[in-house]
This record gives sequence, structure tokens and C-alpha cells, in this order.
Amino acid sequence: MSYYFEVKFRYRVIFEQEGGRLPQLRQSIITGDWVVFAPERAKRPSDYVWKAHQKQEKGDGCPFCIESKTSSYPERVRTLDKETTYTVPNKFPAFIEDPRMCDPKRYKIEDEFYSMRSSLGGHDVVVVRDHDQDLPRFTEAIWDDILETFTDQYKHFKDMCNVEYVMPIYNHGPEAAASIDHPHAQIFSSIIIPNIVAREISYTKQRHDDRKECSFCELIEHEKEQNLRIIFENDDFVAFTFYAARFPFEIWILPKKHQSHFTDMKGNDRGNLVKICRQIFNRLDVVLNDPPLNFFIHSAPVKERPMVSYHWHMEVAPRLTNYGGYEMGSGVIIDIINPESAADYLRMGQKVKNSAKQT
Amino acid sequence: MSYYFEVKFRYRVIFEQEGGRLPQLRQSIITGDWVVFAPERAKRPSDYVWKAHQKQEKGDGCPFCIESKTSSYPERVRTLDKETTYTVPNKFPAFIEDPRMCDPKRYKIEDEFYSMRSSLGGHDVVVVRDHDQDLPRFTEAIWDDILETFTDQYKHFKDMCNVEYVMPIYNHGPEAAASIDHPHAQIFSSIIIPNIVAREISYTKQRHDDRKECSFCELIEHEKEQNLRIIFENDDFVAFTFYAARFPFEIWILPKKHQSHFTDMKGNDRGNLVKICRQIFNRLDVVLNDPPLNFFIHSAPVKERPMVSYHWHMEVAPRLTNYGGYEMGSGVIIDIINPESAADYLRMGQKVKNSAKQT
Repeated sequence: MSYYFEVKFRYRVIFEQEGGRLPQLRQSIITGDWVVFAPERAKRPSDYVWKAHQKQEKGDGCPFCIESKTSSYPERVRTLDKETTYTVPNKFPAFIEDPRMCDPKRYKIEDEFYSMRSSLGGHDVVVVRDHDQDLPRFTEAIWDDILETFTDQYKHFKDMCNVEYVMPIYNHGPEAAASIDHPHAQIFSSIIIPNIVAREISYTKQRHDDRKECSFCELIEHEKEQNLRIIFENDDFVAFTFYAARFPFEIWILPKKHQSHFTDMKGNDRGNLVKICRQIFNRLDVVLNDPPLNFFIHSAPVKERPMVSYHWHMEVAPRLTNYGGYEMGSGVIIDIINPESAADYLRMGQKVKNSAKQT
Repeated sequence: MSYYFEVKFRYRVIFEQEGGRLPQLRQSIITGDWVVFAPERAKRPSDYVWKAHQKQEKGDGCPFCIESKTSSYPERVRTLDKETTYTVPNKFPAFIEDPRMCDPKRYKIEDEFYSMRSSLGGHDVVVVRDHDQDLPRFTEAIWDDILETFTDQYKHFKDMCNVEYVMPIYNHGPEAAASIDHPHAQIFSSIIIPNIVAREISYTKQRHDDRKECSFCELIEHEKEQNLRIIFENDDFVAFTFYAARFPFEIWILPKKHQSHFTDMKGNDRGNLVKICRQIFNRLDVVLNDPPLNFFIHSAPVKERPMVSYHWHMEVAPRLTNYGGYEMGSGVIIDIINPESAADYLRMGQKVKNSAKQT
């Protein structure tokens, strides 16, 4: 055995003697992508607890305080006005709404080599009227108005000639790319099916061909059976940490009934979605001290008929770590907390103690 | 026309009257993934110019100053010692090197539902001996030693029973996840082919089946013909901003000859790679004031024979922006500078002026 191997072996032995947990690769059953869990790379659990940041004040300096003099968003979409929210077009849209551009010849700009398109669709901002509200403590009324606006826009863009997909998202905290503190969701509507969603659809379709089951329905059943990662549950929804998480404390919220489209919700469904959202975002706030996070909704493409292999869901992505060159170059995320431990913390519902102060 | 559309139209007209450039979707010919360019979302060009951060000092506090008393890395891999670099196993490896684990039954840990594996492979750190060296100003000798170590490890892991892929990377600056300032590259060797590379391989293989050409060779030819994005070129290498960039100022460096594996370099190739790397990283430093960045090398899997459809390359990813919920949820990156403008800045080679100070 070469000196090289000797060093590596000795190192490995020390690693194991010190109680090192070996890292583990896990594959997503939704995209087929791999992630690595290397909990030894983490620092103390308390390192996940966030430090508060100074919030921007309401009033004239805030572009989303729409009654203030300096607001640059005078033109709200009045048909989407709700009691606690209103909706404005994004001032710097990533996707442009234009119902006149229906002919692919006008928006497909192929050069002889590359594929390019006009970035058509829509880009709306759903603003909570009250500047001082905050995601972890949104009232039922606010959640209901936000989710109703999402539904309205799913329906609106379904009939738009040049829109294939609608994705509502939320950025909370500057580290999660919320450049404006005033609470607001965004709705991205696009002429393309987004990359990750396209992979989810094709991977779960392939899996459905093989197993004759919706992968998401299987996932729910398996998670309930194992009961290692479930955090909250009610009649219509279940929330658990994701087995092959891309983010520490990543949570998926799924409807228990098979529904491919967000707009398939009926009866008490939305009320129960509001309930579980309030529980989840409140719990993350308590346990991790208002962490920066994103959430986004994945639904079947707006023009698709009901799909047996796809199942809409919400993903919650706390933004506690920064990706390095390996994550960016490989797409393989190196995670530092197991979803099972994350679920334990979230179920207990106590702030992760700052052990640094105790020792 | 509804009030809704009226508002949107009026908005669009204002947008265009003010000289707004419409956002644009572009598709990568290497992965098939889409990106959005929405330059209107950017602030001033000077916002790309980085603010310097205080560097950690050399000596006892630095874990990579290997002669210092407090270094936690006493065990270097002596066979990889070079004049200007040495190599140590990562203290908290994402992939564990273990040549005894050759039987898939021992590392494939399938539960009845999920796929899981022991995270085998290797995780090495290539440390530049001199703490005060810095990526933008690495000497030819340092680059040559780093690239030779990469070659050594590609060869070493090719013969390892449980390794499919080797990816060398570099993290520069804390925002690019370099937690230790002392200059160092890392080599991630893994039992899996990483997600993004797997997509590159399958997409370009499909494209090769259709067109009978290596997509990367086509890319080089097209870029040279268009001459819109090329920054540097020598006998053996060419560097240009990538048409469907995921990062602002993203640069790809490719060998002009068709080579599927990094280890296919011969003769003057490595010398010319050293030259173009020094030019690129120096130029990024001059133009953007030492921006945080990652680079990574994509090569064919170590156990593959020469591939006609794949072509090794280096990708340079400046980390000037933070992804929000849409990027994380869709995989569609919203970029704020066109690769053509980025190439202009880099070719000119002058620091982007801080217009904020002038107005």
C-alpha cells in the first residue's frame, strides 16, 4: 500500500473514531437528481439560528406603500384588489405580458445556431397592504387573499396565447433576495416550462409509466408510513422535510388528494392550505429565528389537462447556506443537516439553543 | 379590453418609451436549459464592481499555513507535493476515499422506496504554499502545479473501483463560499456522475446523434465566426462569455482541439491553458475589482473511453448576484447583463467606472 493510501486510511480511521458520520448520497424521486448529506461539515446547530436584520420603515421611502408620495407603483391591477392585498405589475419584469404576441414567428428569434425567444408571459407583485405584516405571522385573511390572487392569475394566464407556465414565489429576507422589506409575493408567468419543473414532469412521467402510480402520492404514503420527516398534517394537506433536500430544513407541502393543478383545490382545501402555511412559517420563525427563505409553487403547466403523473405542491427553501463551486458546477448540493434531524427540530418547536454561549 | 389589460398595456408602452430593452430567453445548447436576460433589472454597471474585504492573516490562525503550530492539516499527501502547492485530504469530506468498498452491495443502501448510497469518492484540497498569493495574480508555476495535481488525481481516481467522476473546483472570496482565505483549490471525486454533468452529457449526446457534430466544437466555431463574446484566444484555447450564462460575466474556457477528457492535454496544451487562465482571472480582477467567483472543470467521466460528443472545459462563475425564489424554484436564472456587454467590458480591460460618484 502506497504512502498515499496510508495517509488516507489513517485519516479515515481517525474520522470514524471521533464518531464521524459518513456522508450519504440521496436521489430525489421527483427529478432523479442526487444530493449529498455531510452533517460533519456543519458547525453547531445554533449556527442555523438567524441574526435579526433592521427592517426598512414604512411610508415615503417604501415603493410598496402605495399611498405614499414616492411610491413608484401607482398602477395597480384593480381587478386583483383584495381586502388585505393588491397587485401591481413588476416594474422591471422578467416576463412581459402582451396578449397580441400570439404568433410564434414573432417571438421565436432563432439565429442559425442558437435558440432565443422574447421573454413573454407576465410578472406580477402581490403586495400585502399593511407594511408591518410579516410572513411568519400573516393572518388567515392575508394568506387567503394571496392564495386567491395566485388562483386568479393561474386562470388568467391559462387563456393567454403565449403562456405555458405560472409560478408564484415568495422571497423573505435580504439573503433570500428580497430587496424590498414590505411583504410581497411574486407571480412569474412564462412562455416556457421552467427547467426544474420540466425535469420533475418528465422524471415523474417516466416513473408513472414504470409503476403506474403518481410519484407524489407514493411519496405522501411513504412519508406517512415512515413518519420520520412529517411536521404538520390536516385533513387536506401534509408537510414534511424532503428526503433529498437541496436546502437545510427544506419543507414540502402537498395536497393529500391527487391534484395536478393548483386550481384543482375545492371546498375546504384552501382553508386547510392557509392553516398549514401559517403553522409552517410560524414554526420556522420560532425554531430558526426568522430565517431568510423562499417558497414557490410547482403545478402542472396551465394548458395541460389533468395529469395522472404530476401533483402540485409548495416547496419551502430556507436560505441558511451559500453554494460553493461544487454545488454550482455539479448541481449536487452538499447539505449539512439531515432532513430527519431538521424535522425533529421543527416538531419540537423550540428555538435551537445557542450552545456557543453555554460552553 | 378590460381595465386589467389597459393597465398592462399602458405600462408596457411606458416601458418601451423609456428605452426599455425587452427581456430575452436563451437556451443552452449544452444542457437545453433556459435562462432569462432582463438587463433592465440591473442597476448601474458600477454595481458589479466589488468592495474589497479584509483578508485573513497568515500564520498560526490559518489552518492551511501547514507549518504553523495550530494547523489542523498535518497529514499532507506527500506524493502530490509540488514546488508551490501541496495537497491534503479535506477535513470534513463530502466524499470519502475508500478503495476497499468495491462491491455495490456494500455502498448501495436501498430502502424499499428511496435510493441512497454511501458518499464514496474523494475530497482533496490543493493548497498554495504561500498564503499571500491570490488567484488573480497566480504565477505560471502555481497554475502549472495546480493543473498538474488535477491531472494526477484524474489519473488516480480513474483506477479507483468506486469513482465515476472527478471535478476540480476553486472558491474565491467569502461570497463564493471560500471559508478560508488561504488560496486553495478542491478536487471532488464521486461515485456518481454529478447532476449538471449528466445533463450536459445526455443533451450533447442527443445533439450529436442528430447533427453528427460535437456541440462544443460547433460552439467554438460559431463563437469565433460571430466574434461577439470572445475575450482571449491562443493556439490551443479560447475563452468567451457563455451565450446562455447562468452568472453575470460567466466565462467558458475550452481547448480548441476536440478532447473529451482533461487528461487528453498534450505538448504545449497545459502551458497555453496556464496562459489563458492567468489572462482571464487577472482581467476579471481589473474590471470587477477582485469579484468573488468559482471555477470548475467539466470533463468526461473518468472511466469513459474518448467520447465524440463531449469536450472538457472550464467554467468561470462570478458570484455577483444572489438567486431568489424564482431561480431556486424554476432553475431559470434571471440574468441582468448580456454576455455580449460583459465581453465588451472584459475585452476593454478597464475598471467599470463608478458612475454613482460622477453624477
